Parts: sequence; structure tokens; C-alpha cells
Amino acid sequence: MKNPPSLDSLITALRVLPGVGPKSAQRMAYHLMQRDTAGADRLARAIDHARSHLKHCARCNTFSESELCGVCADPQRRQDLLCIVEMPADEMMIEQTRSYDGLYFVLMGRVSPLDGLTARDLPLEQLARRALDGTVSEVVLATNFTAEGEATAHVLHTLLKDRGLTLTRIARGLPVGGELEYVDPGTLAQALYERRGIKD
Amino acid sequence: MKNPPSLDSLITALRVLPGVGPKSAQRMAYHLMQRDTAGADRLARAIDHARSHLKHCARCNTFSESELCGVCADPQRRQDLLCIVEMPADEMMIEQTRSYDGLYFVLMGRVSPLDGLTARDLPLEQLARRALDGTVSEVVLATNFTAEGEATAHVLHTLLKDRGLTLTRIARGLPVGGELEYVDPGTLAQALYERRGIKD
Ligand SMILES: [Zn+2]
Ligand SMILES: [Zn+2]
Repeated sequence: MKNPPSLDSLITALRVLPGVGPKSAQRMAYHLMQRDTAGADRLARAIDHARSHLKHCARCNTFSESELCGVCADPQRRQDLLCIVEMPADEMMIEQTRSYDGLYFVLMGRVSPLDGLTARDLPLEQLARRALDGTVSEVVLATNFTAEGEATAHVLHTLLKDRGLTLTRIARGLPVGGELEYVDPGTLAQALYERRGIKD
Repeated sequence: MKNPPSLDSLITALRVLPGVGPKSAQRMAYHLMQRDTAGADRLARAIDHARSHLKHCARCNTFSESELCGVCADPQRRQDLLCIVEMPADEMMIEQTRSYDGLYFVLMGRVSPLDGLTARDLPLEQLARRALDGTVSEVVLATNFTAEGEATAHVLHTLLKDRGLTLTRIARGLPVGGELEYVDPGTLAQALYERRGIKD
């Protein structure tokens, strides 16, 4: 006695989600097919819609449905200041502090040896082109203060030093091991304000 | 600065999954749209395929792609023995013990006041029709020994007593508070073997 093939396929497909093991995939499949079939249909449509509409901003690499994201397309932002973050959620946290009016570059990742992610998985060429396009004078490294974020900052520093740019790092006002996503806006604003020059 | 609408819709749609809060929905959406777009496509297709192919067995109510599931369509099974379980995974656990050769009825749910699930959410009419169709002489209640499973067994007992059926309950060989899905096959076989008559 086995599951019907379409149910097994669904359970397998749900395992693609981060943090979902066999038991929770099975629970999710039962839920979608028994308790919330309308929700299941909405989920399939939302995936399809996002897959066909979501692109990356040509300038900052974050998710965007248009060629340029809203921040990059805003002429009011300071053009000489470029803040590099790991993920879109980090950019959103910084925006919430209302203490930064420059532009961003979103790595959409980090260096994480345990997950098999190295510097080669980062869009470093695109970042170098952007940072050296002649408009930027200061690059603020705002990767997390985790081991992965620090390793990522090191890679960025190596990439961008000695290029005539001022390189700064947001201040370690964040707790050690902390992630931008989980910090309160006041602490994050302070860390931005106290950003410091990077010494070799 | 906000997420693109299609990304926000995807995050919202992922919240339909049991146990997925705002932060993990966001992490899942990033993962699907950045790290594993092929997995995202497979997931959407698997949902659509399951939604269009998965039905319920007309006889035992479990998931099935055909009118009758494999167990109900098997003429070798004892027709006079009907085992009632909460979920398909429970039926699969019992099948793995190879100690039961009767048929099943799958409730696809349980009584769970905390989740707002009452006896009215169970397919009791369909179950009564099945149990009283003249072929069944013994009904084995094999709901979990959790508070919800015991409440469900009570509802089933009330429904089926005084109808000329022998009502039995699998033995409490399972640990108290235990769920069928997580028990070893030997213990579950013992619990089936020691099933006892239900006294009013
Ligand atoms: Zn942009
Ligand atoms: Zn069946």
C-alpha cells in the first residue's frame, strides 16, 4: 500500500522548501489537498506569477518586476553612496531606519562554506562594474555580523580596495552574531551613523 | 521601499502551509525565486497535478487517483473487518505491520476543539453508510491515543454502538500521548493484536 503517485510527487516537491523534512512535507501535502485546496491553488498560481514576473534590478540586483527597482530609479537618492547588503530584507530594514539616502547593491547571497557557497556564487563582476562606474565614491559594507557575513565583507573588501573608493563598514552596534533582519531600527540607524573606514 | 507585488503575493501564499510564519515564508520565497527556480516550477506543477488527479476513494475516503483505492479494490482482504484511522499515514503504518488484513475507513481528520474541528467536520454519514452496509461485523477504532484521537474515538463509538457491530479499540500498547505515525511497527502490531471490546 503506497501513496497515490501525485501525492508522493507533491510531498517530494515540497522538500525543495528550506527546513522542510519528510514528515513536514507530508503534513503540508495533506493540508494542501485536504484542508485548504483553495490555498493550494493560490500557492501554485503565486509561484507561477512570481516566476514569470520577478526579475533582478539591472543596477542593484534586488528582486524587481521592472528593469530598475524603485530605489535605483529614484533621482532623489545620493548617487555617490553605495550600500552592499546580503538580501532584500536587509535593504528593507535599512530603509525603515530612514537614516540612509544612498543606493544599494544586493548580493542575493553570502559566502557560506557550510552551505557550499563561495565567493564565486556572488555577483562580484556585476558589483565591481557598478561600484566602479564613476558615480560612486563611498561603498558601505552592510553584510551581517555573522561568520558568513564577515567572510562576505572580507571578499568585498578584497575586491574593492585600492580602487579609489572609500570603503566603510557599518558599526558593530549590532550584537555580535546578530543579523540585520532581527535588529531594531534604532540600533541599526546607530550602526549606520557610526560606520567607520576600513584599514588594511 | 517595498517588495515587488509578485514576491509579496508568493510570501502570503506560502503562509497557507502549516507551521510557516512570516519569516520562514519570506525565507522560502527567496529560496524559490533565487536559489532553486527549477524546484519552484516543479512545486507549482506538482500542486496542479495533485489537485487535478487526487480524489477520495469512494469506499474508504483516503486519497486515491481512481474510484477505489488499491486496498478497497483488493478481493483478498477480509471484508468483515473495518479499521478506522485518522489519516492515510496511519493506514500506511498499520499496513507496514503486516498484521491486519481487513479494510479501512480514513477520517482525513480528527476532533480537535483547539483547531476548531468538531464532529461535524468528520465524514460521519459516509462512515455510517460504509460500516452498516451489511458486510462489516467488527469495527476497529485506531485513532491516536492523543486527547484529540480519544475524543474522536468517543464520537465514533457513540455513532456506531448498538448497531449490531462489534466495536474494538486497538490496545494501549502505544505510549500515552503517542501518535501512530511515530511508533515502531512491532508495538503497533501488538496493539492491533490486543484490541479489546468497548464497554459502554
Ligand atoms: Zn535597484
Ligand atoms: Zn479505499
